[in-house]
Amino acid sequence: MEKKFRDIIKRLAGEQQAVIAAVSAGLDSVVLARLLHDSGHLAAVAHCNFRLRGEEAEADARFVAQLAERLGVPYHLQSFDTTDYAQAHGISLQMAARELRYNWFRQLAEAQQALVATAHQANDVAETLLFNLTKGTGLPGLHGLDERQGYLLRPLLAFSRTEILQFAREQQIDWREDASNQSLKYQRNRLRHKIVPELEQINPAFVQAAGRTAQRLRLVETFVQGIIDRSSFIEQRGNHLIINLAELSKLPGWQAVLYQALRPLGFNYAQIDQIAAGPHQSGKLFTSPTHQLNIDRQ
Amino acid sequence: MEKKFRDIIKRLAGEQQAVIAAVSAGLDSVVLARLLHDSGHLAAVAHCNFRLRGEEAEADARFVAQLAERLGVPYHLQSFDTTDYAQAHGISLQMAARELRYNWFRQLAEAQQALVATAHQANDVAETLLFNLTKGTGLPGLHGLDERQGYLLRPLLAFSRTEILQFAREQQIDWREDASNQSLKYQRNRLRHKIVPELEQINPAFVQAAGRTAQRLRLVETFVQGIIDRSSFIEQRGNHLIINLAELSKLPGWQAVLYQALRPLGFNYAQIDQIAAGPHQSGKLFTSPTHQLNIDRQ
Repeated sequence: MEKKFRDIIKRLAGEQQAVIAAVSAGLDSVVLARLLHDSGHLAAVAHCNFRLRGEEAEADARFVAQLAERLGVPYHLQSFDTTDYAQAHGISLQMAARELRYNWFRQLAEAQQALVATAHQANDVAETLLFNLTKGTGLPGLHGLDERQGYLLRPLLAFSRTEILQFAREQQIDWREDASNQSLKYQRNRLRHKIVPELEQINPAFVQAAGRTAQRLRLVETFVQGIIDRSSFIEQRGNHLIINLAELSKLPGWQAVLYQALRPLGFNYAQIDQIAAGPHQSGKLFTSPTHQLNIDRQ
Repeated sequence: MEKKFRDIIKRLAGEQQAVIAAVSAGLDSVVLARLLHDSGHLAAVAHCNFRLRGEEAEADARFVAQLAERLGVPYHLQSFDTTDYAQAHGISLQMAARELRYNWFRQLAEAQQALVATAHQANDVAETLLFNLTKGTGLPGLHGLDERQGYLLRPLLAFSRTEILQFAREQQIDWREDASNQSLKYQRNRLRHKIVPELEQINPAFVQAAGRTAQRLRLVETFVQGIIDRSSFIEQRGNHLIINLAELSKLPGWQAVLYQALRPLGFNYAQIDQIAAGPHQSGKLFTSPTHQLNIDRQ
């Protein structure tokens, strides 16, 4: 595992680049910090306290501080008013935590001239894929994660939870178990503890297989987006997105382009289904939280 | 359910068209025959005996013959030497049964000037999607089924197993339980009895959601295929498929096109991964069971 990790991090970050590990205190991120340390890339450890779990959260923060000390690198701690932020922006706690975390990571990366690595691994990809499948998503919910997106690295994507756990045991690495983690109360845990193991009965390499699928779907999405970007049937003019439905609808499967182009603008699937019903709806108006779409006379 | 079915079959087959129901004796296909009968479309009942399950299979055939008699339509029975066929063609029993069945359906449709309806329903789509996911497929394994493909109809795709079962109970419709069906011995049944119910704990409408996903992925596949068909980077010349890798590889996500174009020619994912690694492999040869691919000097 160490050899494989070294190859990956070299490919993603080059030989010299400093990497900050985002560490929650859980298994994956503690192993990530250790592997980055051993490969000579670890520049610092960063920890987010979302102040949602009282004393548990404080204990996590202390644990990560001690880990940073043992690994001999600086420790960055940020506390967030996650509840306030969620209310102020009218979003879920989960979404709020996500935004706060990545905003801070970006600031850190800029201030420290470093990359930031998160501990997403292969099981996360498989679980997200299955979870989104239960919601009835299109391509955007099924694709995988990139190993590198700008300043963000995900060098554990090639490893499954089982491999990471085995490495932690061999190396006698300690981590803190998230108390909510063992319960089936949350949908994530239903996937992790029930559904994925059943799918592994069908194919023991299910997690890897799902990862390959996600990767291939990501390619398809990139391809469709590339066609959209080069085409003349969807065009950005200032604040306006001009969609030439009459032209677009000559292509087989053209509705796929609408899903890809309109979902990120906040239109929902039901609306896109309606728009996709045909170009003959002159004068109809569709609104998303941020945009409005007007089907114009040709 | 009868009203919804009537709308579907009218859309798929028109008012007059005769439809032959493919009936195995199981729940879905018996309900299919009954709904086709009630909507006035049922022209005949067709049953395949693959001679793989001895007396069980004979009893199924008798049951379907009686059903045809009760519904007052002709009964078509075909027996197959499935085992011989599989051995002769070096394919699995499942694949042999599939080929034999659809070849016969096509002949029937031509001889009778009729359409043939099979009883695939929404759960079949969801289960196939999940099953292929465990294998690590790309788009082709994830898309749904068409409600109509040439002479083939699948008018139950919009219904879940639960709806079909409820209808059968209300209407006091009898069917024969496939003995292998209750066992968890087969992977299909693991999906049906364990995994899908768990996913329905996350979203009770999981089957419908998976169906929508499959439908959207089918659109994407159609779109990518349309781009391939209109493009100049993949071209058919007699028995040769000419791929202009240098040109193709300028498009973002171009590897997605290779998967879509080369999979149906029998190339496997590992080979396509290798071909997708780049256009700079002049002289390399790749072979599938039916084709060979030569990366040519530009």
